[in-house]
Amino acid sequence: MQDVPLTLDLVRDRVESLYAAKTVTTRFPGALVSATYAEVLERSGRLAAALAEAGVRQGDRVATLAWNAQHHLELYLAVPCMGAVLHTINARLPAETIVLLLEQAEDRVLVADRSLLARLDGVALPACVRLVVATDDRAEGSPCDRPAADYEALLASSKPTFDWPELDERQASGLCYTSGTTGSPKGVLYSHRSTVLHTMACLFADGIAMRERDVCMPVVPMFHANAWGFPYAALLAGASLALPCRQTDPESLAALIESAGVTMATAVPTVWLDVLDALRSGRLSRERLATLKRIPMGGAAVSEALIAGFAAFGIEVTHCWGMTEISPLGLVNVPRTSLDSREAAAARSAQGLPIPGCTVRTMTDNGKEAPRDGATPGELQIRSPWAADGYFDSAAPGNRLPEAADGTSAFATDARGRRWLRTGDIATIDRYGYVRLVDRAKDLIKSGGEWISSQAVEGGILEHPDILEAAVVGRPDPRWQERPVAFVALRQDRRRRDEAEIGRELLAALSLHFAKWQLPDAIIVLPALPKGTTGKVDKMALRARAAKL
Amino acid sequence: MQDVPLTLDLVRDRVESLYAAKTVTTRFPGALVSATYAEVLERSGRLAAALAEAGVRQGDRVATLAWNAQHHLELYLAVPCMGAVLHTINARLPAETIVLLLEQAEDRVLVADRSLLARLDGVALPACVRLVVATDDRAEGSPCDRPAADYEALLASSKPTFDWPELDERQASGLCYTSGTTGSPKGVLYSHRSTVLHTMACLFADGIAMRERDVCMPVVPMFHANAWGFPYAALLAGASLALPCRQTDPESLAALIESAGVTMATAVPTVWLDVLDALRSGRLSRERLATLKRIPMGGAAVSEALIAGFAAFGIEVTHCWGMTEISPLGLVNVPRTSLDSREAAAARSAQGLPIPGCTVRTMTDNGKEAPRDGATPGELQIRSPWAADGYFDSAAPGNRLPEAADGTSAFATDARGRRWLRTGDIATIDRYGYVRLVDRAKDLIKSGGEWISSQAVEGGILEHPDILEAAVVGRPDPRWQERPVAFVALRQDRRRRDEAEIGRELLAALSLHFAKWQLPDAIIVLPALPKGTTGKVDKMALRARAAKL
Repeated sequence: MQDVPLTLDLVRDRVESLYAAKTVTTRFPGALVSATYAEVLERSGRLAAALAEAGVRQGDRVATLAWNAQHHLELYLAVPCMGAVLHTINARLPAETIVLLLEQAEDRVLVADRSLLARLDGVALPACVRLVVATDDRAEGSPCDRPAADYEALLASSKPTFDWPELDERQASGLCYTSGTTGSPKGVLYSHRSTVLHTMACLFADGIAMRERDVCMPVVPMFHANAWGFPYAALLAGASLALPCRQTDPESLAALIESAGVTMATAVPTVWLDVLDALRSGRLSRERLATLKRIPMGGAAVSEALIAGFAAFGIEVTHCWGMTEISPLGLVNVPRTSLDSREAAAARSAQGLPIPGCTVRTMTDNGKEAPRDGATPGELQIRSPWAADGYFDSAAPGNRLPEAADGTSAFATDARGRRWLRTGDIATIDRYGYVRLVDRAKDLIKSGGEWISSQAVEGGILEHPDILEAAVVGRPDPRWQERPVAFVALRQDRRRRDEAEIGRELLAALSLHFAKWQLPDAIIVLPALPKGTTGKVDKMALRARAAKL
Repeated sequence: MQDVPLTLDLVRDRVESLYAAKTVTTRFPGALVSATYAEVLERSGRLAAALAEAGVRQGDRVATLAWNAQHHLELYLAVPCMGAVLHTINARLPAETIVLLLEQAEDRVLVADRSLLARLDGVALPACVRLVVATDDRAEGSPCDRPAADYEALLASSKPTFDWPELDERQASGLCYTSGTTGSPKGVLYSHRSTVLHTMACLFADGIAMRERDVCMPVVPMFHANAWGFPYAALLAGASLALPCRQTDPESLAALIESAGVTMATAVPTVWLDVLDALRSGRLSRERLATLKRIPMGGAAVSEALIAGFAAFGIEVTHCWGMTEISPLGLVNVPRTSLDSREAAAARSAQGLPIPGCTVRTMTDNGKEAPRDGATPGELQIRSPWAADGYFDSAAPGNRLPEAADGTSAFATDARGRRWLRTGDIATIDRYGYVRLVDRAKDLIKSGGEWISSQAVEGGILEHPDILEAAVVGRPDPRWQERPVAFVALRQDRRRRDEAEIGRELLAALSLHFAKWQLPDAIIVLPALPKGTTGKVDKMALRARAAKL
């Protein structure tokens, strides 16, 4: 058969020949900017020409420090298609970590939003960075001291066309570091092949089901696991894109949904909790979200309450699960036939079924595969052409480090020599194949020799109609080793004077479903739970707080 | 990223872990037989063990001569997954051609339905065939003289498990010869990679959109271009299968649709014309087809009349286009947004948009790419990881012959060194990307120096409510070189005494849309149009008949 490599050219060529008139709309602060994909392609050609002129060669890393905006999409196309590697840096990281990542990745160019660049003022960039380009994210009052080439000027002065090279599907297209919630950030190097296959998988009818008729709004940042691959999926399917820049509050999202006619959107649950809260309190009218039909949601466990909450407004929430190491999608909660209504209801809040192309297994502590009984927990392991088989190390052969510096490995080899990614998540698999995450291995709470699933308790707390967010962490305990402590935030319209009252209500409700020793020792009400750089609840901060109680 | 090869193991493993309880139902003459996929997998393991025991090694060809039935599905799984090559032989070919193909493919084993094997009685098989296995297709009165191993006995005596080997994605998985309507049959060797990518493409939401909830009935034979890839797609998506064996008349199909709950089905238009005719005449009630929602249809041009005819019964027909050389799907008619209603109506009967993963172009006689204006015709060329880059030749290096024996090539190389498949079809592409086949290059009629599109005239004839089928061919003409002659068959409930009357009506109707010189010189009414081995109208036979007029 034809030796057509699975490279992102396939996506670019398709957009050029079929979807030139589709659009990307960016909601900058104070300005809604639309461009056709034809313009995006033309500008990404100019960008590639400018980067080549600046000395960027195949395999070189080009770092971005940018919000979800049109220029970031141009970088998504230009950098991999010219054979370089797009290194998306988490904009929420502290300056010193950003510098560390630039150094580790040996980035040759840094393209940064002007407001983000301003945060690096006074910080010395590593010597590997030969060129800094500033893009205009239209932030107010954020001059930046560092001399930087202007993105628009660079494009304007660049050659209007670029001779795109032939690429090998095994060459790297992107680099993304994990958020580091489980240790120091680790780099995942995506190949063109893995990215194209993951993009194809986002088009499956049973799954994300991206279609030409969709207007897709990735709220999850483009610096975080490729915004779940949705930008590339939208381009391949011919869907239009709506990008919220850095404005992800309910009012801003509603404004973008309204003006771009967004049909599907994705973000972590915390963002949607705020939207749901606004919908319920009447601050946001459903009419403004009239076009929004579905939300593939993940990044943290999605509660049944949240799914039911949006269903009441006619919006379908699909539970998804992934991680930076899996490009990132691995599971999508697709309803199966042959389940009875009770089973179907129970399955709905599971993380989902493996996407075609992903194979999963759960391994018990004794190295055996756990039975698929929906009860026996084990470490979730994944095998897929879009799952990582090592972490990025610029000094290692093939840039790949199969073992962590401390000798532990996130990768396993089975008896047939097949490689598996160890996710570090504890899960059960039921007889229908639904994977249900019990906990992050490190989030399990060990009390008196027994394990307590923080996620199970959190799910129980979220059943309470007044609760917006919940997180349960372990607190060191001299007698029991660890004891659970819960942190909760209330829905805006359900705030109370007496916070102890809600604690009593929650304990009473939880005790119907949990053993006494599984109940939290304390329930602390906060105005909002602390978030990490990817918008997930920061359990490390909560653990520190719990330890001081 | 993990080096997970794109091999059919991915499909088999997924069925095993997720879809073991889904079913394949075969409607044999006189018997409806169902089996779970778990049983199919178990039996395909036994089959692989038996074939290995019989000396089948990696790369060996195993021929099948079989209708659409469970045992054929078992062969679809066992043969490629053991590293051998599944050579599906067209059961409608004459015995001498079958022998020729066995010889050309150097098939080591022939697995044949007993009734089909009976047709080879008295014919010497080539020496390469070391083992003949007979499967029971439950045909009445077809004893066969040739000594052959019994398929069921082979499975029963085989080892219950098989140690499936690790495969390379570039190794061959299947071999299928073209129907030879354009010359002698040419073999297309599919790789695991091309088959898996094609299978993934059948799951795209904008497209075939195979889903777990589907019950898929491929009426198109499994010996013809892998039944359009639908068996593998159903397995990957977890859809159940309903197989009609060799019974494809409207009553038989209705019986299978009813008993298996078929939701989507595929066959060539001639099969569906009969079904529509039966629906309209009341011989078939719509209730019996209640579960049937959609029909991806192709293999020959699908008329607007046929699409509208099924739409009236609430069944959606999607025009598709492919060929053996493209695994076979290349185009699917997906509705696009941004078309106005007039454009959308016009687009509906086009062959469709290229599937993501396929790139198309049309090349004019002067070697230039034709503009995408919906008017300028050119030869349709395709580039895709599931398009052929040569024909099978067991003696050639890599089994690949890039040129035909007569020096012509079905393959082209562009200025960038990229390879394209020359389809031999003449097409236009409009500004939205819809490809519309004007004609097979060889079906164009050259009259007085001008081209007449046989398909355009056929489409015009099919607008007439009494017409079931139409074919227009060229008849040699001393003055004009060629002149068009039309053959038609009437709907069963619209047959008339005076056949000349329908000819006059058709000419009157056609003259509203066609120039006088484009009108057929004669319109011949036949009880039914002659069909070739794949169910398509046999234009060669009609040309011979026209020449004698």
